[in-house]
Amino acid sequence: MTTLISYANYQLRINDFLATKLKELPINDPTLIEAMRYGLLIGGKRMRPYLAYITGEAVSADLNDIDAVAGALECIHAYSLLHDDLPAMDDDDLRRGKPTCHKAFDEATAILAGDALQTLAFDILANHTFSSNQTISNMPIQVKLIQQLVRASGYQGMCGGQALDLAATGKNISLCELEVLHSLKTGALLEASVLMPAMCSGHVTSEHEKILSEYAQLIGLAYQVQDDIIDLTSTEEELGKPVGSDIAANKSTYPALLGLQGAQDKAENLLQQALQALSRLPYNTQSLADFATFIVRRSH
Amino acid sequence: MTTLISYANYQLRINDFLATKLKELPINDPTLIEAMRYGLLIGGKRMRPYLAYITGEAVSADLNDIDAVAGALECIHAYSLLHDDLPAMDDDDLRRGKPTCHKAFDEATAILAGDALQTLAFDILANHTFSSNQTISNMPIQVKLIQQLVRASGYQGMCGGQALDLAATGKNISLCELEVLHSLKTGALLEASVLMPAMCSGHVTSEHEKILSEYAQLIGLAYQVQDDIIDLTSTEEELGKPVGSDIAANKSTYPALLGLQGAQDKAENLLQQALQALSRLPYNTQSLADFATFIVRRSH
Repeated sequence: MTTLISYANYQLRINDFLATKLKELPINDPTLIEAMRYGLLIGGKRMRPYLAYITGEAVSADLNDIDAVAGALECIHAYSLLHDDLPAMDDDDLRRGKPTCHKAFDEATAILAGDALQTLAFDILANHTFSSNQTISNMPIQVKLIQQLVRASGYQGMCGGQALDLAATGKNISLCELEVLHSLKTGALLEASVLMPAMCSGHVTSEHEKILSEYAQLIGLAYQVQDDIIDLTSTEEELGKPVGSDIAANKSTYPALLGLQGAQDKAENLLQQALQALSRLPYNTQSLADFATFIVRRSH
Repeated sequence: MTTLISYANYQLRINDFLATKLKELPINDPTLIEAMRYGLLIGGKRMRPYLAYITGEAVSADLNDIDAVAGALECIHAYSLLHDDLPAMDDDDLRRGKPTCHKAFDEATAILAGDALQTLAFDILANHTFSSNQTISNMPIQVKLIQQLVRASGYQGMCGGQALDLAATGKNISLCELEVLHSLKTGALLEASVLMPAMCSGHVTSEHEKILSEYAQLIGLAYQVQDDIIDLTSTEEELGKPVGSDIAANKSTYPALLGLQGAQDKAENLLQQALQALSRLPYNTQSLADFATFIVRRSH
């Protein structure tokens, strides 16, 4: 219950922050800004922002700094959804129960809105006044944060993962290949969602950063396994998109590779590993533990 | 002649720099990295890098710092071409006489390669060791450079300009609207190509920065006017794409609004204004003057 309240509060907080960022932009092109707003503010679980906020809480970072981190992460996530949904990629008509951006607007606008949202992520980090005006290894905090976001979102992270995903479509790939794919496509940005707040705190040791990374990668994988399970076992109403769309799209999934029970066991096992990782941290990690549990136990 | 040698030398220099950046990336997805290389290294006039280098020379910036600036600018330019050429946007099959990226690979790969090239631009700036380890108004140089690149390339710059361009296609727009469009779509990144080197120099006054901006906006506009003229008056072989493609695509052009002679007069007038702006700077601006002349006098 506490988790739900905290989750809802942080969802409101990040939505306010992002809405303000968009309002600050001049209206040069009303359609483009509207499409950016559609992609960024219509729905979304705000998992990455929430993870950033509760990590920030755990490591005693200034939450005003986490606003910028969470905002940048969500811009990257939102841009990736706009582009992944395009006809040339996953060709999805629905996202969160609503028409995808290229359906609500058009393809060109969805591509451009995605492009501009990626830029906005770096805009937010580069133009935020961080209360912790610190340097890490002689490097200003903003540069360190941008380095981390670049690694997580670009060729070496999310973009590379999406390319592997497209290349794997219609092929049989091994469990190991599927894990590499998801570790780049989803894991890298979740990892950034804990590492960037750790940087903002300024006193997280590299050993503890490693544990936070491990936790993030584990819940990233658990999220994906559970997503594959939900894609098979939910109703269209719960999903906001057709059931079994992964299989219809010839994507490799955990249930396909391990069976439904095997996938459920795997999700549970990943959860236990994530909780075990947290137990090695000297912080109050209750919210992080609750979040891991929520990810694996959610039904949609 | 000196200009041509200098141009060719800097083209080699930036190509080497960018090739090295791509080589440093791990090969997770061979197709994606190949498409990035295709978009970034196959041809291209390297106008923005050249402008950055000669501005850097004029204001005595360290040219190793300009490598990063020029590299980031070219990554942004290259990503914009990959996306602008897509079927949903300008639908071009040829670029620089070769198949466009989505023709040589596929649409999904061209979208992703563009996305990853945008990230690479910020990667290059955030991970470069600047010799001038200076701060500007208490802000580290890297953050200032990223702020500038964001403004020039995102919603408030290039992306916004491309959206206006798409919105204007098939419509009659005024000369004033056409200038706003180009000032965002092309001018903003050219302006960054002079302002970022000025930041690296560390001793360019804000008054001189304004003059450099003015120069860049003038040659940006002149470039576009000349481009429209060339699109009408060249052969397909010279252009590397079909003649009259702007008109075929129902784009507003300067010759359409002003007539061919009017457009030629305008280009010449912009050149004279640009040269006049340079004369107010206390630097050796011969290369910048030659470049402005080259832009207006080029025939392809």
